Amino acid sequence: MENFSDEYFMKKAIDEARNAFEKDEVPVGAIIVHKNRIIAKSHNLTEMLTDFTAHAEMQVFTSASEYLNNKYLNNCTLYVTLEPCVMCAGAAYWTRIGRIVFGSSDENRGYERIKTSLLHPKTKVTKGVLKEECSKIITDFFETKR
Amino acid sequence: MENFSDEYFMKKAIDEARNAFEKDEVPVGAIIVHKNRIIAKSHNLTEMLTDFTAHAEMQVFTSASEYLNNKYLNNCTLYVTLEPCVMCAGAAYWTRIGRIVFGSSDENRGYERIKTSLLHPKTKVTKGVLKEECSKIITDFFETKR
Repeated sequence: MENFSDEYFMKKAIDEARNAFEKDEVPVGAIIVHKNRIIAKSHNLTEMLTDFTAHAEMQVFTSASEYLNNKYLNNCTLYVTLEPCVMCAGAAYWTRIGRIVFGSSDENRGYERIKTSLLHPKTKVTKGVLKEECSKIITDFFETKR
Repeated sequence: MENFSDEYFMKKAIDEARNAFEKDEVPVGAIIVHKNRIIAKSHNLTEMLTDFTAHAEMQVFTSASEYLNNKYLNNCTLYVTLEPCVMCAGAAYWTRIGRIVFGSSDENRGYERIKTSLLHPKTKVTKGVLKEECSKIITDFFETKR
């Protein structure tokens, strides 16, 4: 696996998803990359924080903006294991993030099912990177819940 | 103005918007009411926190969930001076908030311009409460920017 490839960075997001799994959180992980450096990483903490706004993406938007001292993230790429929901897509819109790379699709809660585009027109999207691995961790998680 | 009316609570949200104005933030205020008690109040802090996720609504969702120790807010009402954006509507969806009351509409950035409903099917919406007052504070703010 080449350094600085989408697969390389998605692996890092998957590591974050695994951290969520270990905390009994729906396992979604996210990182933000700026000039080939990871400047923010986190995972879903909805249960631990009793807070639906604690999705992985929301946390890395906050962290990356803090790190860059800039609320705009147009030179950054978000890697997230699952397709963002409407809330996270709406946050991405405000940040004007340069690019979003996500793993597995979320047909029920993902932003892509909304007909009107929710993202900023300048935001590029790549999907399906390591999607089997991203998807499997979620399937495995919900199997432990049965 | 009757106690516990929508106008009564919207006035409280407007007080929060004024706090934002004084901090040179786009003046939007929000409160969350549970059993006729205000359990969370805040205002937009995007500039101060260098963080687009710091909208008034996001903050009160977090605070109210913390206060109730429940990430679901189905017995709560959100009062917000401006129509929520897509991010905040997406967050409201997750919380399943019982009711949203907003003042002025936001034709450019509000969630209502999206054809697909972004809110939870059980969430009731009332709009236009004290809309002139809610709108005027924003107009006044942007006039100071010219």
